[in-house]
Amino acid sequence: MIIDCHGHYTTAPKALEDFREAQIACDCDAHRLAALIRPRISDDEIRESLEGAQLKLQRERGSDLTVFSPRASAMAHHVGDEATSLQWSQVCNDLVARVCRLYPDNFVGVCQLPQSPGVPAAHSAAELERCVTELGFIGCNLNPDPSGGFWTAPPLTDRHWYPLYEKMVELDAPAMVHVSASCNPVFHATGAHYINADTTAFMQFIQGDLFKDFPTLKFIIPHGGGAVPYHWGRYRGLAQDMKRPPLSELLGNVFFDTCVYHQAGIDLLLKVIPVENILFGSEMVGAVRGIDPESGHNYDDTKRYIDASALPAAAKSAIFEGNARRVFPRLGARLKARANI
Amino acid sequence: MIIDCHGHYTTAPKALEDFREAQIACDCDAHRLAALIRPRISDDEIRESLEGAQLKLQRERGSDLTVFSPRASAMAHHVGDEATSLQWSQVCNDLVARVCRLYPDNFVGVCQLPQSPGVPAAHSAAELERCVTELGFIGCNLNPDPSGGFWTAPPLTDRHWYPLYEKMVELDAPAMVHVSASCNPVFHATGAHYINADTTAFMQFIQGDLFKDFPTLKFIIPHGGGAVPYHWGRYRGLAQDMKRPPLSELLGNVFFDTCVYHQAGIDLLLKVIPVENILFGSEMVGAVRGIDPESGHNYDDTKRYIDASALPAAAKSAIFEGNARRVFPRLGARLKARANI
Repeated sequence: MIIDCHGHYTTAPKALEDFREAQIACDCDAHRLAALIRPRISDDEIRESLEGAQLKLQRERGSDLTVFSPRASAMAHHVGDEATSLQWSQVCNDLVARVCRLYPDNFVGVCQLPQSPGVPAAHSAAELERCVTELGFIGCNLNPDPSGGFWTAPPLTDRHWYPLYEKMVELDAPAMVHVSASCNPVFHATGAHYINADTTAFMQFIQGDLFKDFPTLKFIIPHGGGAVPYHWGRYRGLAQDMKRPPLSELLGNVFFDTCVYHQAGIDLLLKVIPVENILFGSEMVGAVRGIDPESGHNYDDTKRYIDASALPAAAKSAIFEGNARRVFPRLGARLKARANI
Repeated sequence: MIIDCHGHYTTAPKALEDFREAQIACDCDAHRLAALIRPRISDDEIRESLEGAQLKLQRERGSDLTVFSPRASAMAHHVGDEATSLQWSQVCNDLVARVCRLYPDNFVGVCQLPQSPGVPAAHSAAELERCVTELGFIGCNLNPDPSGGFWTAPPLTDRHWYPLYEKMVELDAPAMVHVSASCNPVFHATGAHYINADTTAFMQFIQGDLFKDFPTLKFIIPHGGGAVPYHWGRYRGLAQDMKRPPLSELLGNVFFDTCVYHQAGIDLLLKVIPVENILFGSEMVGAVRGIDPESGHNYDDTKRYIDASALPAAAKSAIFEGNARRVFPRLGARLKARANI
């Protein structure tokens, strides 16, 4: 079984975008927000949005199950206020839940969190709980920078985030550290902001004692861990100079996906990071959609790079399946139960 | 000859730090700043600060000449005002100039620029000119984020920077893109802010048309190019999706150093980036000072990784010497003149 730990519903029907525009036009007016009609999307429209995209790519590329979340760049936590963000998260998560109900073998949900600059992280916990307990989701995407590129929130190791972490631990629901759109013109979203956030989060984990307080808390750092594997020597050296524990101590809690879009990058990742800390991910349909003229295949067909690597079969199997089952305990339990039916 | 393109005067005598503290205590009062006594540092103190550090490491590790600039993390352009930053830059650059005069075979100067948040980049040009024409420097360090981690300046491709670029082109003086300390608690300076800035700058170059306007402008992106080589497929794919020119078109203007502190990272860099775009650099005495227990050698002894790579001798020679002579034309000319004496 091939589990893709990182897929977004980037192809949602246009009614979702129309709703978002209507929502933004409410300009944070609570009455107008409450009066908004939720996007009307039929099951057929959902099927159509997926059949020619994610489902087609799953079949073509040979993956089975995608850990699926709302479009990351559209979370845009910097837009509107807390009520706007909560409503938008609910609408997006409900739509992903419908995807997962229509295609239970192909998709399992991970939620967008309602976040807003300056709002306590505790306020995100209820939507996580709703998604896990009512919609059957297995984790969340946590935005370390709800400001959209101005980085006004405290580090992920700060107690600001603890109420959310308590809920994550209680629900056994890991988070992918995932920023959203950048409204800072210096940062291209998928080319700079995403990668920077990944790098930044890992360094925060080195500096802090978060996993002493939450020994079972788990994070996936996407996009191959940002710059981290490439600079693994730098991070080992910094931890050593700062008299912090060796990086291996973080690896019970921190994992990396394989959204790295060339063979040499994947080879580095597989060489530097222990196999048990790598989860297959493609980010599709996502950041890069073209075909690499050098390989003749899509850049984001990351399964090919892992297939082509020199790893033994057992290691590939862990990356493709075993690690995702372990890191997302709710997924592991569900797949086990399904196999026993 | 082995030229290290990236060294900082991180071991300057304490009088420099004392001066900085006195300067900060002036609290931007122009009269008090003007009345400050420049740090009194003897030639012997300078020699002592280098003999046990940079010079010792040059000898031990087998490098000859270091492209030397003031301590990057101490530039702290977010501290004080424009007058503070100008004075601090002059003092730091003058001290590096003394180093280069005392050890003309071992060091060649690159200047810190006076920058401040919100201040026109044109105001940095005079100090660059002074350093190049009066002190014999060959380039500058350009901070793309004088705010120190809040990223309030426009992208490097914005016309904001053009007056400085005009001076760089006129003087044939390239810039290393180098941020300074982070005053944003989310960003560890050397572990996140530095690497993020490298990644960010490269993505800006992909997005903009800067090198159409300045065909001879040259930038070195330090720390092995941040995350860029590791995500080379992502950047190739993004450029393609955005209908931007192929990355190869940037490589007449953009270069990477080798400040990557493990063999696997260097091997990736050498595999992905053309040899002519890689300049040997160590960042020493710098970000990581310890010994890697896995290799038994200092993390930042980056020459070892290049020596140990599978590159042919001519390619190693380009990385160690030829590329630096070409990218820093004033260095090339000086070394040529020296050889002809």
